Amino acid sequence: MDPVGLFPFTVDSGLLDFLGRLSIPALGGKLLDAAAAHAGARGFGYNDMRRREATWVLSRLAIELTSYPRLSEEVRLLTWIEGAAGLFTHRCFELADAGGEALGYARSVWAAIDLTTRRPTPLDAGALNAYRTERPCPIGKPGKIPPVEHLAGGEPYRVRYSDLDVNGHLNSIRTMERLLDCFDLEMFRQRTVARFEIAYMAEGRYGMELAFHHRESSPGRYDMAVCHEGKAICRAAVTWQ
Amino acid sequence: MDPVGLFPFTVDSGLLDFLGRLSIPALGGKLLDAAAAHAGARGFGYNDMRRREATWVLSRLAIELTSYPRLSEEVRLLTWIEGAAGLFTHRCFELADAGGEALGYARSVWAAIDLTTRRPTPLDAGALNAYRTERPCPIGKPGKIPPVEHLAGGEPYRVRYSDLDVNGHLNSIRTMERLLDCFDLEMFRQRTVARFEIAYMAEGRYGMELAFHHRESSPGRYDMAVCHEGKAICRAAVTWQ
Repeated sequence: MDPVGLFPFTVDSGLLDFLGRLSIPALGGKLLDAAAAHAGARGFGYNDMRRREATWVLSRLAIELTSYPRLSEEVRLLTWIEGAAGLFTHRCFELADAGGEALGYARSVWAAIDLTTRRPTPLDAGALNAYRTERPCPIGKPGKIPPVEHLAGGEPYRVRYSDLDVNGHLNSIRTMERLLDCFDLEMFRQRTVARFEIAYMAEGRYGMELAFHHRESSPGRYDMAVCHEGKAICRAAVTWQ
Repeated sequence: MDPVGLFPFTVDSGLLDFLGRLSIPALGGKLLDAAAAHAGARGFGYNDMRRREATWVLSRLAIELTSYPRLSEEVRLLTWIEGAAGLFTHRCFELADAGGEALGYARSVWAAIDLTTRRPTPLDAGALNAYRTERPCPIGKPGKIPPVEHLAGGEPYRVRYSDLDVNGHLNSIRTMERLLDCFDLEMFRQRTVARFEIAYMAEGRYGMELAFHHRESSPGRYDMAVCHEGKAICRAAVTWQ
C-alpha cells in the first residue's frame, strides 16, 4: 500500500469561520480523521490499538497555511509517517488545492498509551516504519513553547458536556477553538494565522475550571497556556502575519 | 429528480459524545449539510438564493431519536420537502441504519430572508412544491415553546470567534451544544434525549452577553431560552427519557 494516504474533501459551510475561510480547528478535525483512516488502512489504527489494550494520543500538532481554502473548494489532504522511534510517531500532512498546489503543511507527534494505566507504551516501530517515507514536509517541527501559565488572570472556562471526546476528555479540537477564542475578532479581520502549534500535556476532564493565558512574546507571536490549578495541561503558540 | 435525497455517512469519532453515541448537535450539522445539498441539487440551494439576493435561515428544528448510532456505523440520512407556503418551507428528515431501519426523524422550518434587509422574503413556492412529497415523518411538528427567559439567574456566556458562522452570526449548531451543556453529565449517563426542539428567533452576534435559562416544566421535559438583555434570541425544549 502507498505510504501516502490521500483524503480529498469539500470545504462545506460548517468548516468555515466568519470570514469564509477554512478554520484552523476545522482543519484540525480533518487532520485527525485522515490520520485515523490512514493508520486504520495500514494495520495500526484505533481498532488495532484497542486489541493491544492501547490507544493513540495526540501529543503535538503544528499547522502552517499560506492560503486558506473557501466554500465549496475541493481540497486534497495527504498524510504519511515520517518515522517512529521510542515512544513517539511523527506524522506529516500536506493540504493542497484541486490542482495539487500546496496550501500548507502540518506536523504531528503521537504517543501510544496503555488503556488501563494511561501511561505511554512502546510502539510497534517496525510496523510503523514499514510505511515510513522521505516525502518533504517543509515546516518547522513542533518545539518547546515557553510557559505563560504563571501570568496573572487568564480567561476562565469550565469543561462541559460538548467539550468531551469519546474518551470523556477535553476534546483536542475544542481546545484549539477555545485558544483562538482568546483573540479579538479584529485580529482575525486584519491578520491571518501563519502558524498554529499546540502541545497537549495532560487530559482535561468534565467540570475542570481552566484558565487560558496568553502573552505576545515577539511581534505577532503569542505563547499560550491552558491551566488547571496553576499547572498547564496544554501549551500553544500562534503566529499571526 | 427524486424528491427524496439520500445522504449516507459514517459515524466517525468527531461526531460522538463521551458515551460514544452520535451527538444531537453533530446530527444537527449533518441535517444542515443534507438540506443544503438536497436544495442545491434541485435549484433552490444557497447559491441559487444568493442570485436572488436571499438566503435560507433555519427557523425551527425538532429531532426525535429512538436509537443512537455509534462509532463506524454506516447510516442513511434522507431528506425531503413536506411543503412550502407563505414565508416558510417545511423540510423533513429520516435517519436510518444501513438496513433501512429508522433510528429517528427530524422536522425543520426554514424562511428565506433578503440579504440586505435580513427580513423574510417570499419563497418561490411553486419551485419548492414541485418536489413536495407525502412521505410520512411520524414526529410532532415544532410548536410553541413556553418562555422561561423571565427566570432569575441563567448561565452566562459571551459569543466568541469559534461560535460564529460564515455570516458572522451565532452558529445554530453551537447554540445546540451550549443548550445541552446546561445539563449535568449525570443526566446524559442516566437518560437519553428523546426529543430536542429549537426555535431560532434572532441572530446572535460577536461579543453578545447571553444567559441560558432552563426549567423542568413537566417530568423530564425542560423548557429553555437563550437571552440577550432579557429578550429571548432562541427557545428550546429537551425531553429526556
